Amino acid sequence: MTLMRVLPFTKLLLEQAVEAGDHVIDGTAGNGHDTLFLAELVGEDGKVYAFDIQADAIKATRERVKDFHNVELIHGSHAEIDQHVTSPIGAAVFNLGYLPKGDHSIITKAGSTLAAISQCLHLLKVHGIVAIVIYSGHEGGSEERDAVMEFVSQLPQVQFDVLQYQFINQQHSPPFLVAIEKKRIK
Amino acid sequence: MTLMRVLPFTKLLLEQAVEAGDHVIDGTAGNGHDTLFLAELVGEDGKVYAFDIQADAIKATRERVKDFHNVELIHGSHAEIDQHVTSPIGAAVFNLGYLPKGDHSIITKAGSTLAAISQCLHLLKVHGIVAIVIYSGHEGGSEERDAVMEFVSQLPQVQFDVLQYQFINQQHSPPFLVAIEKKRIK
Repeated sequence: MTLMRVLPFTKLLLEQAVEAGDHVIDGTAGNGHDTLFLAELVGEDGKVYAFDIQADAIKATRERVKDFHNVELIHGSHAEIDQHVTSPIGAAVFNLGYLPKGDHSIITKAGSTLAAISQCLHLLKVHGIVAIVIYSGHEGGSEERDAVMEFVSQLPQVQFDVLQYQFINQQHSPPFLVAIEKKRIK
Repeated sequence: MTLMRVLPFTKLLLEQAVEAGDHVIDGTAGNGHDTLFLAELVGEDGKVYAFDIQADAIKATRERVKDFHNVELIHGSHAEIDQHVTSPIGAAVFNLGYLPKGDHSIITKAGSTLAAISQCLHLLKVHGIVAIVIYSGHEGGSEERDAVMEFVSQLPQVQFDVLQYQFINQQHSPPFLVAIEKKRIK
């Protein structure tokens, strides 16, 4: 056997959590890979809200999902998710850090990341998942990682399960996953 | 969906790693649950070596696997695995801490635990798994946990993948899993 890597394991959890017809959020559209994956999962009766602050990311994502009519692209901060999404969501996904092949000085930051995660947890259906893939090898990455870990480890255990899935003997700070399942509304 | 708890996830990895006919090790026979599970997985052509230092554990395990002829019970320390097992193994499992329903003052300890893990890693086949379920809520548990985490996080990444699977927002130090896959012989 081979232990599942972080990104395939994240996709597996999203597949298990998302149902056709769900509304879901891609909090970091980036090059659009997760947006496309989610658009396929929710199907034509569902909806994907995909956020990115970078025009290049929105453009790349628009191109990748051009055959889908169930994606709403929002060129803006994921800290304003609650201004665009009011329906319950089945899942949300975040890939923290910088845009691959983009400007590495433009990074997600703790303040807006925590705001976005909080808003997604509020919108989340019971047994839905918020999946956060954390990259911390870049400058500023460890501060964001620490802030996210502090926040998620304090989530009340009666309402949420917070799973960390991480390979711990690797150099160069490879990404790891934090997956949050909502167990009950309050 | 519901995130898999630590013990079912551990069993899933063992199921994926172990093939019929394999030799495997239960490093902490305890009440024999894992020994039984492994005996079923390896089948009549395989073999389970189950270790425990406590006579009560050996007795309970013997009773639980009484219908199986593929289990060798060793009433002794798992620090002496290499005196009893010389064949390659497909998997090994450890449940650290104390014997449930037994004497809680008798606990696994860092020195013998690390010796046992090292010996298992040496015997392990490529793509085999050593699964270590770590309990640290009892007195002495955090020292053992820290020693194990220090050891496994230093394993060379060209030879091993070390996965941590842990729910991180729970009180009372619930158990978590460290799973080590051997990727190549050296």
